[in-house]
Amino acid sequence: MLKFELLRTEGAARRGRMTLHHGVVDTPMFMPVGTYGTVKGVLPQSLLDMDAQIILGNTFHLWLRPGLEVIGQFGGLHRFEGWPRPMLTDSGGFQVWSLGGADGKGRKISEQGVKFASPVNGDKLFLTPELSMQIQTVLNSDIVMQLDECTPYQSAGMLTSEAQARRSMELSLRWAQRSLDEFRRLGNPNALFGIVQGGMFEHLREASAAALAAMDLPGYAIGGVSVGEPKPEMQRIMAHTPAHLPAHKPRYLMGVGTPEDLIEGVARGIDLFDCVMPTRNARNGHLFTRFGDLRIRNARYRSDERPIDPRCGCMACRGFSRAYLHHLDRCGEMLGPMLASIHNLHYYLDLMREVRNALDAGGFAAMAARFAADRAAGVD
Amino acid sequence: MLKFELLRTEGAARRGRMTLHHGVVDTPMFMPVGTYGTVKGVLPQSLLDMDAQIILGNTFHLWLRPGLEVIGQFGGLHRFEGWPRPMLTDSGGFQVWSLGGADGKGRKISEQGVKFASPVNGDKLFLTPELSMQIQTVLNSDIVMQLDECTPYQSAGMLTSEAQARRSMELSLRWAQRSLDEFRRLGNPNALFGIVQGGMFEHLREASAAALAAMDLPGYAIGGVSVGEPKPEMQRIMAHTPAHLPAHKPRYLMGVGTPEDLIEGVARGIDLFDCVMPTRNARNGHLFTRFGDLRIRNARYRSDERPIDPRCGCMACRGFSRAYLHHLDRCGEMLGPMLASIHNLHYYLDLMREVRNALDAGGFAAMAARFAADRAAGVD
Repeated sequence: MLKFELLRTEGAARRGRMTLHHGVVDTPMFMPVGTYGTVKGVLPQSLLDMDAQIILGNTFHLWLRPGLEVIGQFGGLHRFEGWPRPMLTDSGGFQVWSLGGADGKGRKISEQGVKFASPVNGDKLFLTPELSMQIQTVLNSDIVMQLDECTPYQSAGMLTSEAQARRSMELSLRWAQRSLDEFRRLGNPNALFGIVQGGMFEHLREASAAALAAMDLPGYAIGGVSVGEPKPEMQRIMAHTPAHLPAHKPRYLMGVGTPEDLIEGVARGIDLFDCVMPTRNARNGHLFTRFGDLRIRNARYRSDERPIDPRCGCMACRGFSRAYLHHLDRCGEMLGPMLASIHNLHYYLDLMREVRNALDAGGFAAMAARFAADRAAGVD
Repeated sequence: MLKFELLRTEGAARRGRMTLHHGVVDTPMFMPVGTYGTVKGVLPQSLLDMDAQIILGNTFHLWLRPGLEVIGQFGGLHRFEGWPRPMLTDSGGFQVWSLGGADGKGRKISEQGVKFASPVNGDKLFLTPELSMQIQTVLNSDIVMQLDECTPYQSAGMLTSEAQARRSMELSLRWAQRSLDEFRRLGNPNALFGIVQGGMFEHLREASAAALAAMDLPGYAIGGVSVGEPKPEMQRIMAHTPAHLPAHKPRYLMGVGTPEDLIEGVARGIDLFDCVMPTRNARNGHLFTRFGDLRIRNARYRSDERPIDPRCGCMACRGFSRAYLHHLDRCGEMLGPMLASIHNLHYYLDLMREVRNALDAGGFAAMAARFAADRAAGVD
């Protein structure tokens, strides 16, 4: 099930509410990534404390470990990982694509599906749209993604041509139909999203969006961005594609991005985002704040008694100083990435909360301008 | 300050209450170890949730990183690491001793103190009783330990002789007096504990205890156990020494041990314990339970839907299965050691709670017998 209410708009930006089997998601919303059934380094209780409404799981990883037999025994991912709220799973396609390497030699794509070797034990595996639906049905995620082919920005040093991007996009459309057929055959009660592809070509993106819209899916994603293209290219696609998707259905920009990307995405009409950046950067001591980013490893924080961000209300900022986090990082203590991950995720979720409040009050444009000025100011 | 009330006894076992500058500690009590100003992998909030009443910090490590300048700026360790309750710091002596290696070549002990090279940057350092007091005064821990020489069980393959153990014990006594003199000179308002040494020789332990008792310190520790000796040797010292310490002062058995060791220690009249075992073992997938220990890595837990211990009330057992913890371990996910550390510490603290309740009710002997039978039963 999925019910989407569009509550308010400001320009292209949208304030909405999505009701899923496991609960309600206010949009625009950022989804923390829980690849292997855990948002790295964060207790589920901490995610609830920061009011994360929906998290992501990676079909590819969970299929390999612990495997479907175990997750099936638990009736799905929710009980297995102890997460009571909505969950989205990707299709596995992007991970298989990433496995391939720059030259794509690590996997073989055919009309039928993708052949590749398991990075865990070398087993030969074959992922098809049907299998992806079967896996995601066992995972029982609230939002299921179609299997798609992620069109690369370049391959072996050559930019993807219009002909290549078209072939790839058309394959993804046929896989969307097969995904939908299998999803229905399985009687999956959750919501299947289609994924717009088309590379850096606007007319291909439009064709993809139109064909997917005709399938009347409950939601749509924009894929094939944040795949190595220069930022202006991503921004061009972000500016172009959302308007070609049905207005009354949620729109999800996959794998994006920085805080600035999120604000720009909202301005262009995106409702959902996911990215490993807050947690991955946290583990490298890269902290996001309202006034720019802060590298906790920097010697200037050695004796800094202030919290990461004095205006932040997260557990890390309520109880600990930059000096303490600097010390933990220097000693390689686990508590360092634990607190940094809490802070970064809280920052992303809080930013989206601020966006929603601004949209509710009709003040998103002003909020976005303030955001840009604050971020440019730099950390004190 | 330290006030110790002996509330009740059962045989040699003691139920007490210790009031320190930062709060009250019910005894017998286990103290989680927070070497570098953090109990590895555990949020301070989780320690409060499991009602840890006192934690330990390592003077040696904190002296090297972040150093006294930083901790001094925070007015001590409590504010630096965000821990509001009592804290005990060791003297640094045991770590310097550990640095030396089996042959002791890594450090040089003289009457004045210990010379060694910093394992962080190679700096030549010289730890004296006076310096240890100065460092611990900056740390502002509630319980300060004297600098002692930890007498090894054996050295270069030879058991420590009576003459060697005597020389070492007498040096520790002189260092106790110097520690006390400096502690007073500094006007440190906290509580200084002396450390009984004497190796595996009862008469040396008695001489050490008597000389320390004459100094009228507010508490006493038994050191130089859990230093590589066979378990029966440790048990012999544990059975012998406590009775030679003043009855109305707290007794702390340093660096011990397994759950069985703790119960035996209580039976012998020990009030305080510390050990890295619950957290270190947790990081290796070794979990403690009422019915014996459990290695979560074992393939038999792959699809086990039960919590680590169905009768345990910790956060890990309330929300997660053995199968999930097995999966986290297999994937090298941080959440694995995080949940395992919470469980193991909760187990240790809960065991001590059970001990205190039994002592309150005059049923410690029965409780200890039940404990031994349960632990021997093995995990289902």
